[in-house]
Amino acid sequence: MENKRYYGIDIGGTTVKIGLFEGETLVKKWSVPTDTSNGGANIIGDIIASLPGPAAGAALAVPGAVLPDGTVNRCVNLGWGVCHPAEEFTEKTGIPCRVLNDANAAALGEQRLGGGQGFESVLFVALGTGVGSGVVLDGHLHVGARGSAGELGHLIWDPTDAAAACTCGHHGCLEQYCSATGITRLAAQAGVPGLSCYDVVTRAAAGDKTLEAVVDKATDILGWGIAGACAVIDPEAVVLGGGVAQAGEYFRAKVQASFDKYAFHACLGTKMYLATLGSDAGLTGAALYAMDGRK
Amino acid sequence: MENKRYYGIDIGGTTVKIGLFEGETLVKKWSVPTDTSNGGANIIGDIIASLPGPAAGAALAVPGAVLPDGTVNRCVNLGWGVCHPAEEFTEKTGIPCRVLNDANAAALGEQRLGGGQGFESVLFVALGTGVGSGVVLDGHLHVGARGSAGELGHLIWDPTDAAAACTCGHHGCLEQYCSATGITRLAAQAGVPGLSCYDVVTRAAAGDKTLEAVVDKATDILGWGIAGACAVIDPEAVVLGGGVAQAGEYFRAKVQASFDKYAFHACLGTKMYLATLGSDAGLTGAALYAMDGRK
Repeated sequence: MENKRYYGIDIGGTTVKIGLFEGETLVKKWSVPTDTSNGGANIIGDIIASLPGPAAGAALAVPGAVLPDGTVNRCVNLGWGVCHPAEEFTEKTGIPCRVLNDANAAALGEQRLGGGQGFESVLFVALGTGVGSGVVLDGHLHVGARGSAGELGHLIWDPTDAAAACTCGHHGCLEQYCSATGITRLAAQAGVPGLSCYDVVTRAAAGDKTLEAVVDKATDILGWGIAGACAVIDPEAVVLGGGVAQAGEYFRAKVQASFDKYAFHACLGTKMYLATLGSDAGLTGAALYAMDGRK
Repeated sequence: MENKRYYGIDIGGTTVKIGLFEGETLVKKWSVPTDTSNGGANIIGDIIASLPGPAAGAALAVPGAVLPDGTVNRCVNLGWGVCHPAEEFTEKTGIPCRVLNDANAAALGEQRLGGGQGFESVLFVALGTGVGSGVVLDGHLHVGARGSAGELGHLIWDPTDAAAACTCGHHGCLEQYCSATGITRLAAQAGVPGLSCYDVVTRAAAGDKTLEAVVDKATDILGWGIAGACAVIDPEAVVLGGGVAQAGEYFRAKVQASFDKYAFHACLGTKMYLATLGSDAGLTGAALYAMDGRK
């Protein structure tokens, strides 16, 4: 069978990362700056101008909410309101195009070709500015009825008003403790301000007891949340991605230990894996999503 | 198209409820006593002896854990250990047979023909001795990699050691507060012992302020848990079943209000519905599961 060409396009607030795939093989990648001027009106045109030719399909991973019908419902970092970028892409290129949330794209990329390879169902959790998440079931992305499946970051750990306020309007959401931002905040509260999350975790791993207590709290809450999500969907495996997870095995093992403490007994065989695709996860998952749409 | 015959068989600790379906229509139902003597060795034979003839398929809903390969991993109320009842059924009858957890069966029944009719993805929550739950996505039951999807009752509301101990070994599981047993216990703690859960809810609805506070606490925690599950799978609708839900609109409205308080904003359109199939939910879902297996 001929391996058709697909574009996987990961649109971030600063840079658009683009990959050309032949089947599941990434054959070329490049990037273009994200022009957020004029409400992001030039973004799709700039992407198209960089493409080396036709393809069987494409998908756009975007940093915002995507409804199941392909409507994008605001991407603050791009300047976009409610819009239909996949339709615009197809109108201008003739290439069939889909659109999906960037954490969902990374989930699909990691499940199929990254840390979750070999598993048909994966819960993906990316720790960055927030906590992004995605759910792959039976080999396919599960986006949910309103496009908001995989919002693990908004499980409510502490519903009291005294808990940290979240950008979503609630208090005590998981991402207030477990995101890179959250871990940095916990470290500052423990008397160690000004560190990046990566520094917090690596210093904890090197033996700093104050910072280890911070990492213990964050991973305790993350393991609790993953245990809760697994009680609902019971995936084969969990993949941890994003900047915090780059701290590696020290962090992974703590999340696993917390998961094992909180998980329903029938879920206890579920293992945490580290993501392996790094910053290619989004464009890889987008290309795979384009291929899935052509089946 | 001819409507083939299927048996939906709901095996409870006291009674086995059996339905004969032609397509999705229940044409006859009956029951046989559950003989739990001798490790439940007679149960399948007693069911078979009651069947009026051949069928295109059957499924057994059982009160215990079912692995994806059809292995039943203990049903304490039936006397069963690890066993393969669907294989036994097929060997003795020649009828293809599947097996599934009883809460999962009720979920599928309510989604397809009950309170969730018209929705392709449904979170079902049944409040009884425990909190049973099931997840239907894209019109099909999602059982999970280890057969333990939909364990909403074991979301951990209060992880502290002081919280109520759960039969699963953890503390503070949702079902310790929201099951019929849990609500009865909360009422006793509030100084009103000896009431059934139904009585607690109906007296609260009639104006008893002490018992209303009990129902408020239970529904607050249940709405929190449903909001968490919806942040993971984002179903179109939620269906509330089991004895507690028979208390009706008063209870449903309180769960909806709590859900609306805790839900991630993108999930806010999700509505709670009451189950409509009553004690036929399990046998109905089992028959539908048998039909799904024949597609």
